[in-house]
Amino acid sequence: MSIGQSIPRVDAWEKVSGRAKYTDDLVDRNALIGKILHSTIANGLVTKMDTGEAEKIPGVVKIITCFDVPDICFPTAGHPWSTDPAHWDPMDRRLLNRRVRLYGDDIAAVIAEDEVAASRALRAIKVEYEEYPVMLTPEESMKEGANLLHENCPNNILKHTSVTDGDFEEAIKEEGLIKFEGDFETPMVQHCHIETVTSWAYMENGRIVIVASTQIPHIIRRIVGQALDIPWGQVRIIKPYIGGGFGNKQDSLYEPLNAYMTTQVGGRLVKLELSREEVFFGTRVRHGEKIHLESWVRPNGRLVARSYTAYSNQGAYGSHGHGIAAKGTNVFRQLYRDEKARKTDIYTVHTNTAAAGAMRGYGTPQTVFAVESHIEDIARQLKLDPLEIRFLNVMPVGFVDPFTKNVNYFDSFHQCVDKGKAYIKWDEKRKLYQNQCGPQRRGVGMSLFWYNTAVWPISIEISSCRMVMNQDGSVQVQLGETEIGQGADTVFTQMAAETLGIPWEQVHVISAQDTDITPFGTGAYGSRQTYVGSAAIKKVALMLKEKVLRCAETLTRMSASSLDIIDGNIVLTTNNNQVLVSLAELATETLYHVDHAEHLTAESTAQVKTNAFSFGCAFAEVEVDIPLGKIKLLDMVNVHDCGRLINPKTAAAQVHGGMSMSIGFGMYEQLLYDPRTGKLLNSNLLDYKLPTMLDHPHLEAQFVENYEPSSAYGTKALGEPPTVPGASAIRNAVLHATGVGINKIPLTPHVLFAEFKAAGLI
Amino acid sequence: MSIGQSIPRVDAWEKVSGRAKYTDDLVDRNALIGKILHSTIANGLVTKMDTGEAEKIPGVVKIITCFDVPDICFPTAGHPWSTDPAHWDPMDRRLLNRRVRLYGDDIAAVIAEDEVAASRALRAIKVEYEEYPVMLTPEESMKEGANLLHENCPNNILKHTSVTDGDFEEAIKEEGLIKFEGDFETPMVQHCHIETVTSWAYMENGRIVIVASTQIPHIIRRIVGQALDIPWGQVRIIKPYIGGGFGNKQDSLYEPLNAYMTTQVGGRLVKLELSREEVFFGTRVRHGEKIHLESWVRPNGRLVARSYTAYSNQGAYGSHGHGIAAKGTNVFRQLYRDEKARKTDIYTVHTNTAAAGAMRGYGTPQTVFAVESHIEDIARQLKLDPLEIRFLNVMPVGFVDPFTKNVNYFDSFHQCVDKGKAYIKWDEKRKLYQNQCGPQRRGVGMSLFWYNTAVWPISIEISSCRMVMNQDGSVQVQLGETEIGQGADTVFTQMAAETLGIPWEQVHVISAQDTDITPFGTGAYGSRQTYVGSAAIKKVALMLKEKVLRCAETLTRMSASSLDIIDGNIVLTTNNNQVLVSLAELATETLYHVDHAEHLTAESTAQVKTNAFSFGCAFAEVEVDIPLGKIKLLDMVNVHDCGRLINPKTAAAQVHGGMSMSIGFGMYEQLLYDPRTGKLLNSNLLDYKLPTMLDHPHLEAQFVENYEPSSAYGTKALGEPPTVPGASAIRNAVLHATGVGINKIPLTPHVLFAEFKAAGLI
Repeated sequence: MSIGQSIPRVDAWEKVSGRAKYTDDLVDRNALIGKILHSTIANGLVTKMDTGEAEKIPGVVKIITCFDVPDICFPTAGHPWSTDPAHWDPMDRRLLNRRVRLYGDDIAAVIAEDEVAASRALRAIKVEYEEYPVMLTPEESMKEGANLLHENCPNNILKHTSVTDGDFEEAIKEEGLIKFEGDFETPMVQHCHIETVTSWAYMENGRIVIVASTQIPHIIRRIVGQALDIPWGQVRIIKPYIGGGFGNKQDSLYEPLNAYMTTQVGGRLVKLELSREEVFFGTRVRHGEKIHLESWVRPNGRLVARSYTAYSNQGAYGSHGHGIAAKGTNVFRQLYRDEKARKTDIYTVHTNTAAAGAMRGYGTPQTVFAVESHIEDIARQLKLDPLEIRFLNVMPVGFVDPFTKNVNYFDSFHQCVDKGKAYIKWDEKRKLYQNQCGPQRRGVGMSLFWYNTAVWPISIEISSCRMVMNQDGSVQVQLGETEIGQGADTVFTQMAAETLGIPWEQVHVISAQDTDITPFGTGAYGSRQTYVGSAAIKKVALMLKEKVLRCAETLTRMSASSLDIIDGNIVLTTNNNQVLVSLAELATETLYHVDHAEHLTAESTAQVKTNAFSFGCAFAEVEVDIPLGKIKLLDMVNVHDCGRLINPKTAAAQVHGGMSMSIGFGMYEQLLYDPRTGKLLNSNLLDYKLPTMLDHPHLEAQFVENYEPSSAYGTKALGEPPTVPGASAIRNAVLHATGVGINKIPLTPHVLFAEFKAAGLI
Repeated sequence: MSIGQSIPRVDAWEKVSGRAKYTDDLVDRNALIGKILHSTIANGLVTKMDTGEAEKIPGVVKIITCFDVPDICFPTAGHPWSTDPAHWDPMDRRLLNRRVRLYGDDIAAVIAEDEVAASRALRAIKVEYEEYPVMLTPEESMKEGANLLHENCPNNILKHTSVTDGDFEEAIKEEGLIKFEGDFETPMVQHCHIETVTSWAYMENGRIVIVASTQIPHIIRRIVGQALDIPWGQVRIIKPYIGGGFGNKQDSLYEPLNAYMTTQVGGRLVKLELSREEVFFGTRVRHGEKIHLESWVRPNGRLVARSYTAYSNQGAYGSHGHGIAAKGTNVFRQLYRDEKARKTDIYTVHTNTAAAGAMRGYGTPQTVFAVESHIEDIARQLKLDPLEIRFLNVMPVGFVDPFTKNVNYFDSFHQCVDKGKAYIKWDEKRKLYQNQCGPQRRGVGMSLFWYNTAVWPISIEISSCRMVMNQDGSVQVQLGETEIGQGADTVFTQMAAETLGIPWEQVHVISAQDTDITPFGTGAYGSRQTYVGSAAIKKVALMLKEKVLRCAETLTRMSASSLDIIDGNIVLTTNNNQVLVSLAELATETLYHVDHAEHLTAESTAQVKTNAFSFGCAFAEVEVDIPLGKIKLLDMVNVHDCGRLINPKTAAAQVHGGMSMSIGFGMYEQLLYDPRTGKLLNSNLLDYKLPTMLDHPHLEAQFVENYEPSSAYGTKALGEPPTVPGASAIRNAVLHATGVGINKIPLTPHVLFAEFKAAGLI
């Protein structure tokens, strides 16, 4: 039984010793260097480009401008392809753009023999523009007569959806209802993966090979095919170890351009490695959102009717687009259940900022911040216990979601909250901190969250797996699902070992994906790895086991129905699991059999047509220094029901990382733009305030294990949920400490000072 | 129909443009450098080794001596493993040797940060020996009381086999028989592949990864496991493009030592690249043989009884051992059929020369030289036409070999000889050259050959294949069988395309093998690629096709039995092959299907329990300058029946290369040892006379295509046979020109001068 054990990460030694190879470690020393010329205006048109001087620079091999590239629009979002065009992501991207939509847009590219020549060439290119006004917020870009960024987006609205459940107007007529409103604002933040966006591409036998730091190699293959208008089989993507992605690399970022570059230099190898600055302004960010909530509530706290209006800042390009705002509405609709009616009205709006895409949480952190702040405010104003009001309204046990058919099987919310309360000493501290005065005050706050696993039925969910048995009975596992630092390879190892009946040390997951060889899987996103990938692992492990037992039948002359594999041996179940023969002997005998030799392998695709609710909560304790406008986070706990734990230690590590991101989101991080030029001002890790371990208290990760019945190994989402509830828990702790509920994050001293002043505390 | 077309080699562009990556191209720039210390005596014992000074040299990381390595004996021959120990190859090799058996034996190894430090360290190691007498020939080493090289080889005989068919003593009593005898001698030669023996090894997640220039990655995995006494699954071999092997790389050469080296430096990457000199003296060579033939013949030329005695110089280590001499006896027994009896008596004998192993032809060039020279001499002395005497005795149509069950289905010998005669203008020139005098004389000669394909039933023959379909209907093909420069990938492409019904451009053979991922196949040897590999390709292509047609049934609503794939489209066979849907549409629809998504792949193992006779002949025309002792090869043709031609141009290229090797074998090449020290004297490409294109006339390759019914695509051996008949054809042409039959090759001026003088021509 390797499941449930905290086996060491299978890639631990390689990564700790610095031996693990990442994209840039693998590049040939003779690679050409590609660099991108970025626009120095935020909105406009390139009218002229003069590359004459640049081309004279020694070492410059090729310059490609926005006037040269094919006029093909392609999508970039890392979703599974759909044969139904209604499910296609926005196709608004070109390899290089004449129409400039953000400060730093890609308008030309240089390929040179070395970094210096490439950089010099960038500086030598002369560009002339036609400039339009800069629009950094949906308010600005939705204005009547505003300059249009994409022709097919009137008023710069990429998409607007409005859904009403129940008769809202009728519902609010109920007598005695109290109306609450709140306006919430969340920042645009960046993923800040350690490894920047890096790829290198070359041609081999007429095909394009791209080695890329991506979460989604098989999807990148398709998008590159679309972007270059070539058959998808002409593209091969290889994904080595990657240094973090967090959703940014669930987009096709520069692989299509890199692919095009190599075609322009006769297939020579071209490396395209982005600087940290380029990653900040030119890749993807989390959508900044403004959310208006309106709730009609009975005095006892029961929600009767609610409405949710959100403006999601999409930035310059479509990427994952409206999906993020839409996922937010799901949180709004499902975490709490209104008795009568519910309205959602969401806008995804283009502006001249960085294109917003997927980021760990995928819209959930924004909405949970709003919803969990709002309910806290309602509780406070109604003088109700904040936990009581939540449990009065929270999704009930037995709830079946009409769209996904997901079932809430367990009383996870109560179980998680009980653990969180106990850890943070909730009852004691709620009481202790209730009558503070003085400049430093403490408080405890909490937040629930909801998340669903994987993307069915929005997109298809498939995963393919192949297993290859060696002569010693050990097994390689190939999977399209990707290790991106989250520990996927380790849990895949444990799953395969469990079903095959072999020690985990005998399972070797092939960590790198190669779309030419690796069974198709869509990659790492939607917290789907353990949920969808596991379906393929179990299916294929059982196929391989069946083959093994069929061989064992011949070898041992026992009925396969009386045989099993335990700890790498064929055992006779009818005789107290007597060991008959080792898998090593069986595999060797089978492979070299004079009469019926066979290389024992198995491969198949699993399609998953379910998903599962993941739940949990965070509790935070803070000390607020009112005059300084500073929050000190004293303690924090996340409690997750992610189903059965495959590996408690790596699960906890996932939670720690997510909690850190939620702290950054709530307290420190935001992208700041110059309103005049549209230039991103803090595009580096000095000016962008990413919290580190030193900024954190002890981060406590706890779990409730309810075996998820729709999942091959009882698991459900854990990758993204840890990022979700932290910001609202901190915000509510500050409210508890100071009486001031602050609806705009991050809770920086600038914000706190203004709020405390307005509240008369300063 | 891509079979039968001379499509360009699929790796042509990569190789011609210099872009194809070979082992050394792929090594990380931070690799440690391994170098081997070779003994400076040919026979003896290392009594003491002082590495003290060497270890002080800056940059030296580790020195390993023959006193350090584990005392494990392992085999090196690249044969499939057998679960029956009776089939095991000699296990006489250690990683490093205290007991020195050849000049240049491996006695220590250095691992250093760079080449210079490694080389300096080698020079600084002090060695003391106990020396024994040098034995370079079987005559010397078989002498009573000779020093024993291997304890289990009495009289230094690795193996001796003696087989008699029929009653020999009785048979030779037949009245009127004429007895003929001949003694033949063939040289020890080296393969001289362009890429020297190169590998690099490192550890990953506790396992050993070796990137190696080898013909047999899956076999190397097993041998490294044996050599280090670790489970075979702990070893992973990756084989990139390789620059020739010719059988030398059908041995485990330095992969085990390289693997051991990395374990001694904590798994750091160690590169071990041999110099040309090391390849010559320290890897493998073709067995030099001395063959005695005795034939009892009726006056009409009919062979009645024959005997064959051979001494095969095995050199210092066992490697492929007796298999080479044994294969020679098969040629002797099968090319011609005696009426009554036949005796073979063969010895494989250790000496202090380079270890002899597999080399293109595997014993056949030696025996065919003897047999085809001998029959020519008989014809000449009996005044019979040399073709007539051959056809009187040659293996008849319908012959069934009792051991292999091979059937000689066709009259290939006549068909091949007819073509060869016509090309060389045999009848005309035999007459024209019959009464020459003067110093320059011309002659034509010929030789038949026999070869059988693959190694069944000596060893198992299996090949596994996997095919992976892309969204555009193109397909990757993975196979354990290896491209080693012979064009295997190209013919595999054509085979897969034919059976799948898609254009060959849509087939992408994964050229590199990786034992973790690549379906098991034993590699390139025994001219087995198109014969055994094809069985797997056909089997798996049919499996994939069946899957495709099953999907097509759903998609088109037609019965799968009425559907076929032609030129990448699903067609309705009952309606004049009407195109219903493209494979691209089908593959995309299937992969992303909302209800039953599937990545279309197929994988299986094919076991081949047949082999097939390959036949043919060579005709040569020479001009001999008698006083100068020089032969000018004027023209040469090889005619092969290798079954159906998959790719006529690459088949011809195979033949050209083999003919060149046969010319070298017959006229130029030999390893020369210093009899006093046992040191190889010509271990470089300046002193070792390898012929080049400039030394050759036009090399004509012709074919007879008899579809081989035991083969998946009608093919049989072509890889090795071209090397076989050339030397005897040249020798027989010299006989025709001068009347002197020379039984020792190469036919260098030294040999010719002595022979012509003895014959009274000079």
